[in-house]
Amino acid sequence: MKAIVNVYLKQGVLDPQGKATLHALESLGFTGVKDVRIGKQIVLELDASNATEAKAEVEKMSQTLLANTVIEDYNIEIVQ
Amino acid sequence: MKAIVNVYLKQGVLDPQGKATLHALESLGFTGVKDVRIGKQIVLELDASNATEAKAEVEKMSQTLLANTVIEDYNIEIVQ
Repeated sequence: MKAIVNVYLKQGVLDPQGKATLHALESLGFTGVKDVRIGKQIVLELDASNATEAKAEVEKMSQTLLANTVIEDYNIEIVQ
Repeated sequence: MKAIVNVYLKQGVLDPQGKATLHALESLGFTGVKDVRIGKQIVLELDASNATEAKAEVEKMSQTLLANTVIEDYNIEIVQ
């Protein structure tokens, strides 16, 4: 079973990597971009058969390691 | 209009950040994880009205700046 965890900065938290990308896009001539935010996409290959249990386990992993919940939010998607 | 670009390392390219995360999860007692791969999720706020044109534009951005196509693959999703 595969789990995808998207970790992104909370609204209002400054994203310097996103800002740098926005300016780089502008200087390359891409003028239609208003904002860029950059997050992480973590793909986990799990040894689990039950999607509900897998999601609960990945929730725990996100809380303890994958996301810094002070400044980041995350969402979990179970596939297959 | 919002575009989401997921950038991930190609199959076969070593992912040290993913490996480190896998070992950290194991040492925290999460034993059911077989593999971890870490990619980027880039969220772009676009000044566009047409989804097809927006996707073509984001495709160009991905090729020129957002992804290193030698070692990375990407997929584009247009939302709203």
